Order: sequence, then C-alpha cells, then structure tokens
Amino acid sequence: MTEVIVLNGGSSSGKSGIAWCLQAVLPDSWLALGTDTLVEAMPASMQASDAGIEFAADGGVIVGAEFRTLEAAWIEGVAAMARAGARVIVDEVFLGGAEAQQRWLGALRDLRVLWVGVRCDSAVAAGREVARGNRVVGMAASQADVVHQGVVYDLEVDTTHAESMECARTIAAHVR
Amino acid sequence: MTEVIVLNGGSSSGKSGIAWCLQAVLPDSWLALGTDTLVEAMPASMQASDAGIEFAADGGVIVGAEFRTLEAAWIEGVAAMARAGARVIVDEVFLGGAEAQQRWLGALRDLRVLWVGVRCDSAVAAGREVARGNRVVGMAASQADVVHQGVVYDLEVDTTHAESMECARTIAAHVR
Amino acid sequence: MTEVIVLNGGSSSGKSGIAWCLQAVLPDSWLALGTDTLVEAMPASMQASDAGIEFAADGGVIVGAEFRTLEAAWIEGVAAMARAGARVIVDEVFLGGAEAQQRWLGALRDLRVLWVGVRCDSAVAAGREVARGNRVVGMAASQADVVHQGVVYDLEVDTTHAESMECARTIAAHVR
Amino acid sequence: MTEVIVLNGGSSSGKSGIAWCLQAVLPDSWLALGTDTLVEAMPASMQASDAGIEFAADGGVIVGAEFRTLEAAWIEGVAAMARAGARVIVDEVFLGGAEAQQRWLGALRDLRVLWVGVRCDSAVAAGREVARGNRVVGMAASQADVVHQGVVYDLEVDTTHAESMECARTIAAHVR
Repeated sequence: MTEVIVLNGGSSSGKSGIAWCLQAVLPDSWLALGTDTLVEAMPASMQASDAGIEFAADGGVIVGAEFRTLEAAWIEGVAAMARAGARVIVDEVFLGGAEAQQRWLGALRDLRVLWVGVRCDSAVAAGREVARGNRVVGMAASQADVVHQGVVYDLEVDTTHAESMECARTIAAHVR
Repeated sequence: MTEVIVLNGGSSSGKSGIAWCLQAVLPDSWLALGTDTLVEAMPASMQASDAGIEFAADGGVIVGAEFRTLEAAWIEGVAAMARAGARVIVDEVFLGGAEAQQRWLGALRDLRVLWVGVRCDSAVAAGREVARGNRVVGMAASQADVVHQGVVYDLEVDTTHAESMECARTIAAHVR
Repeated sequence: MTEVIVLNGGSSSGKSGIAWCLQAVLPDSWLALGTDTLVEAMPASMQASDAGIEFAADGGVIVGAEFRTLEAAWIEGVAAMARAGARVIVDEVFLGGAEAQQRWLGALRDLRVLWVGVRCDSAVAAGREVARGNRVVGMAASQADVVHQGVVYDLEVDTTHAESMECARTIAAHVR
Repeated sequence: MTEVIVLNGGSSSGKSGIAWCLQAVLPDSWLALGTDTLVEAMPASMQASDAGIEFAADGGVIVGAEFRTLEAAWIEGVAAMARAGARVIVDEVFLGGAEAQQRWLGALRDLRVLWVGVRCDSAVAAGREVARGNRVVGMAASQADVVHQGVVYDLEVDTTHAESMECARTIAAHVR
C-alpha cells in the first residue's frame, strides 16, 4: 500500500492543484502537506532574514541554517504521521534537486513512497504565475528545471497541456 | 479608447486569471474589480441569509433583494470610476444572463466597453474547481452555460485549451 | 441620514474590525470598502514599483503618481455608490493627514458623512501587528500618529482599551 | 528545556495571536502548528461530511471517525517533530476537554511540555468573532468554556483585558 506520495515541481507548476484533485479522487482520506505549510508555520521574521528564507527580486529563493534545522524536524514529523497511519501527499519544491530528495529519502526509508515529478514548461508556468496575481514574478521560471536535476521518480506528469485532474488520475492509477 | 473591459464567465472559468494577466500586459494601469470584491464588501451576515446570497449544496447561487440594491449602487460606482479616469476590468458572473448584462449596459451606456465572454467546457471547469480546493463543488458546472444565455459580446475566449495569458493577449489586441 | 462613515486610522489600529462590527450592528446593509480593497484591485506590479506603492523595510509606505490617479477615480466611484443608494463604510489610512482628508471631502461634499478617527496607542498597535503575523513590522508604529495630523473628526474612538464591538456601538449611536 | 508549548482555548480566544507573538519574543525559532493547519491539510470534502467536520449553524463543531484517524497520526507527527529538534507551539481547541488533552498527553509523554490555557470572556470572544468578519457566528461563545473542562495547565492567561503580546511575554517567562 502506498503510504506517501511526494509531488516535486517548481513554483506554479500545478502541484497544489494536483494535490487537491488527488484528495478528491483517491478512495481514502489523505493529508496534503508541503513547503507552504512549513513556511507558514515558521516565525514571520524568518521570511526575510539571513537565517530563514529570502525571496530575491528575480524569483530566486535562498534558505538559511535555521530553516534547514526546522525543515529536517518537519520531514521527520511528516514521516512519523505516515508511520502512524495517515496517508500523506507531500507537495514539495526540491530547490537543491537530488540533494533535497536525499533529505526525504532518509526520513521515508521504511515507507512505501510514490515519487512523482510535476513538470511544466517554463514559459507556461511563468504565465500562470502572473495569472495567480503573484507580486514577485520570476520564481516559476527560475525553478522550472533546477528542482528536477538528479531527482529520481516513479512517475512524471506534465501540466503544460494536461489538467490537474487528469494528472491526478494518472497518479492515482499508480497508488496501491 | 477602451474605458472598461467586462469579463463574464462562470465560476472557475478563469476570469480572474485573465484579469491579472491583462493588468500585466496592458500598457496602462487598470483596476480589476468584480463580483468577488462586491461580495467581500457586504456584511458577513448577508452570505447566508434570505436578503443576501445563498450558496446551495449543489453549487447554485440565489441572491436576495438587499443584494440587488447594493449591487445596483456598486455598478453605478464602478461606472463612475471609469468616467473619472480609471480604466477598469470588471470580472463578473452574469447569473441572470442577458438580464444581468442589461444592468451593466445601463450604467456603462456612455463609456467605451469591450464585452468579453470567457467560456470554459463545463467538465474542465468542474475539474479546476476541485483543483482550487473549493469546499462547495458544483458551482462551476451549474454556471458554465447559463451565464452566457442571451449575452452579447465583442469577443469570446475559451480557456478550455488556452492559457490565461494567451486569452489576455487576445483580448489586449482589441483594446484601443 | 448618514450616507458614509469614514474610519481613519493607522495600520493595526483596528479599523477593519470596527467596520465588520458596524456592518453587524447597524440596521441597514452597509458596504465596507477601503484602502485594502483599492490596493488589491491594482496591478500586482504596482506593489513594488516607483509608480505604485512601496513598502519600506521600516514600515513606511510611499505611493507614486499612478497610484494617485487610480485612487482619485476610486474615491469618485465610492462617492457615486453612496449617491446611488448604498450606505458605505470607508476604511482608510490618511497617510498624508489633512491633505488626504481633502481628497475625500471634495468627492463627498454633497453627502452626509460621519468622520471617525480610530486611535490606538502606538506600542499597542505595534504589538497587534506582530499578533497578526505580519512579515513587515513597523507600519503600525510609523502610522499611528501621522494619519491623524490636521484631520477633523465628528467622533473619535480609541481601541487601546476598548473592543472593536464597543467602538462600533459608540459610532453606531451617531449614525442617523 | 521546554520542547512544546500547547495553547488551548476556544475559537477567537486569541491563541493564534499569542502564537505569533511567542514566535517573535522567544529567542529560538519555534514552529507554530495547530488545528487550523490540520483542517487545511484534510480533503476539502471532509469539511462538510459525516466522516469529517461539520460546522453547525449555531457554531457547534462535530468531527467524525476519519477526522479522528488523521488527527491521531497528526499528533504523533507533531510530537516526532519536537523529538527531532524543532521547538513547537501547538495551537489547539480541545473540543472534548480533558479527553482531548489525553490524546496529546499520550503522544507528548517523553517531552517537556508547557500546558497553557487561553481564556477569554465568552461575550468578548463573541464580539471578536464578529470583528474578524466570520460568516458563521457562534463558535466563540459555544467553545469558550467547554474546551477547558477538566484540562490541567501549567499556566493560564486571559485575553479579555490583556493584549496577545502581554500574554506571550507571560508565557515566555515560563519557557526554559
């Protein structure tokens, strides 16, 4: 039985939409947690500090040491939720590519995980970023490719021409 | 010179995304206002009362007498903003079709308006409604067609297979 | 009959809470509109540009020429809504003090307006700003006094020691 | 060293505000997680179903079996985060009073926890619920007392007359 689904993709690639659709089409009740949940749980001051996250004007994102510490504990906790019986969809942005996947691989080592890459053409993602009213534009383009570098998947979907619901059905067909 | 762009379409048809993109691609600064702005400005108690708006379990929407009174004044005010020099994008859901358009036609009679129909296949809109995490599902499907009944447009776009940005560029080409 | 209630106060002074309470306690249905509504209606790009609004790291706010143009039209439109029969609560931050009031006085000249100052001790407002999870801290303190400079009121309330609901009842007692 | 701070109080009692202030005044970086985080992570369909959460018109809240299953796993996961080195503020509503505390006591048994009761006069909380623009009113009043029944605290704060920041400083003084 699949215990965790990890969705990895850049900003505005459509991960969250797919997560909502997965929750709707999968037979059991799944929790959807992700980078956004973690960032919201952090102190507001970490949003713009050396220790936390920095959103550069060009859409780049830099995270500091305290962010990494809290993130490591967060990952352990999400794994513990799955071990305790919750089926979990993880909605992630592997800014460091393969290195970021390693962090999750370690914590999820004893769990059955479906690794899913969520791709989206860089220009299309950039357009969707504008369509969502984002004030800082550029994150979608800067993350589109780097988040997939060296990452190994069981399955990849591409939202460039496919709806979130369609991608969710494709993924759901691989969930045991 | 186009003074007002009216975007009419059902829930989850993509109007707001197109409005954000229009604001990004049009040379001047346009205000984007719409049904959502009006509803948020109303008393919270009107959200679930006979006088205000009622969201039925199947996605239907019923509005009462007090809603109509405030809406009529709102429409006059938006027209006045355009007359006072703001270029305005109106993001609307013509629940009553042609009758709803009449309300705006009256208020905007002396202004140069570009009327745009935003279509989306009903099943696709329903999928996008789920992908946005909406708790009440059904509004997209129930509104997809009725909002266009008897409405006259200068231009129609269809988001079923086109991105918001692409639709926005098509519309922008008609703005003088 | 009072047609417009203008609430003026600094960020985190409690204006929005009072506006929600006024909508609940006043017998008729009032629209609540304000600076936040206007800012959300503006292009996202104006949030961080010379032409639009700039939020300084210390909480200061600078607005540019295009902001002023859209704001002037917005004010005319809100006045037109009141003239067309909607009773309106305006939730404002008079960054320019008396000069900002002049802009509204001109547009509302023929309407019966209740001018209300919403005061809050600077240190208390700064604490509430933190309690709301604001990322940029400092706006509450920097605006607490300047927004009232030279502004003339019919009535003043102070949220330092009074609840929003209590302030709303005080204001409501002055509404004819 | 305090590893977890549990804040328990009814809706609109001011827990979230205190949590934001604690994150600002405590020397380390703390994660703030709570009922709201969990509910947002659940499938949208569970918001209004027998299996999930039901918000009654009078402000009552009923949760079903699937909610309890996911909640149990969530609690284990939050405990695991604390064990893995994140200091965590838990922002909770013990709808079942002592029984709800038992669920957390079990999971947090080996951790140093500061149990904090967040009280607020029922009528004041009800007023603040309106001031926050809530559509469904009644939750604050119905939860004000029941959430504390049989619950044991290290410390209690009362937001009726004290600011969030003041309460946060009182709590912080008990954090080792």
